[in-house]
Amino acid sequence: MTKTIAVIGGTGNEGPGLAMRWAKSGKYRVIIGSRQQEKAERVAAELNARLGKDLIRGMVNPEAAAAADLVVLTVPYSAQAPTLHSIRSALRGKILVDATVPLQPPKVSRVYVPPGGSAAAETQALLGDEVRVVAAFQNVGAAHLREPDHPIDCDVLVCGDDKEAKAEAIALAEAAGMRGLDAGPLQNAVVVEGLAAVLIAINKRYKVKGAGIKITGLESARTSSE
Amino acid sequence: MTKTIAVIGGTGNEGPGLAMRWAKSGKYRVIIGSRQQEKAERVAAELNARLGKDLIRGMVNPEAAAAADLVVLTVPYSAQAPTLHSIRSALRGKILVDATVPLQPPKVSRVYVPPGGSAAAETQALLGDEVRVVAAFQNVGAAHLREPDHPIDCDVLVCGDDKEAKAEAIALAEAAGMRGLDAGPLQNAVVVEGLAAVLIAINKRYKVKGAGIKITGLESARTSSE
Repeated sequence: MTKTIAVIGGTGNEGPGLAMRWAKSGKYRVIIGSRQQEKAERVAAELNARLGKDLIRGMVNPEAAAAADLVVLTVPYSAQAPTLHSIRSALRGKILVDATVPLQPPKVSRVYVPPGGSAAAETQALLGDEVRVVAAFQNVGAAHLREPDHPIDCDVLVCGDDKEAKAEAIALAEAAGMRGLDAGPLQNAVVVEGLAAVLIAINKRYKVKGAGIKITGLESARTSSE
Repeated sequence: MTKTIAVIGGTGNEGPGLAMRWAKSGKYRVIIGSRQQEKAERVAAELNARLGKDLIRGMVNPEAAAAADLVVLTVPYSAQAPTLHSIRSALRGKILVDATVPLQPPKVSRVYVPPGGSAAAETQALLGDEVRVVAAFQNVGAAHLREPDHPIDCDVLVCGDDKEAKAEAIALAEAAGMRGLDAGPLQNAVVVEGLAAVLIAINKRYKVKGAGIKITGLESARTSSE
């Protein structure tokens, strides 16, 4: 059965590119969620026009979450808690992939450790045990994400306490054209989230746009989801 | 003038390989520090035998720090504070490169955020403003470090609040055969230190020994220290 993904906050910086890649892979049905129905539909229509097929639907966030098997959260840190409250009742029993990067503008090249340990840990605390939270996709630069055939030279580090949920996120990374790697428990999300600020610092310092990270030393290992 | 480096705790896991690479580069005079004079001398002699030249000296930690222009700390987190107290008076006005990884055995594949924000921030707080602390070398696997001609497929991310001190650490990385990158302020050390636990998690999960990280997307940039 083809699973349905909802990309909550999917009209922002990161969501549209991921949505387009997942739709194009043929492995998922994709819904873009937004606070406004009209905006969700407009962005979905734009992406479908680029894809040349009507693959992506647009809905308000709570409806998108309710219609999905897998929910991906791509909102700014400041919108994380209110957005989760708005979709909470639709998440019970599901997997939530949290791509939130805890930044404190304007100092976006400084690592910020949220009071709850990490943005993803705060999400897990807010949602409780009935939702399996995994942290992933924080370090994927938006630069080439919307060109679905453009290779992305960045690994997706996946942190979580549930093996099956991590495997789903790793499969999502692969469907979007990246390598997904199990980076340990949800507790490790503080590092993977904070890497986004480090990469912004590197972008500024070396005057580049899309610094990413790759894990080395895995050549001899099986890296696919098992 | 050739600078002298002291590798404090240089008889441990990480220190000997770095010491050997810096000595071999011909760019530095190198002293290995240990709590015991005899052990420092023995390890220095072993490394000199491998190098085929008497390039490295061994001293007790406080003497090594006093004799050096640049001090590199390579001790386990549990030894960090006592070691710093023992060399503190010799550090005034100098640069300290802190390679400490805050791990909490036996859970070494879980990121641990120290109460002071990071191990390096705790070092800076302990030493005060008269010492410029930079964080670096936490993610270099010891596996091939003692084979000075073996390439190390890992970048050295350098965090600090002093530009000149960061440039020194970047030069040290390059002298040891790695790429050093300015990764932002000392506040970012929490991520670079925590990456060590993430890499241990990846080593375990994928049954490899030396997972490392490389920053991608810098191809068009100047990456040498300016």
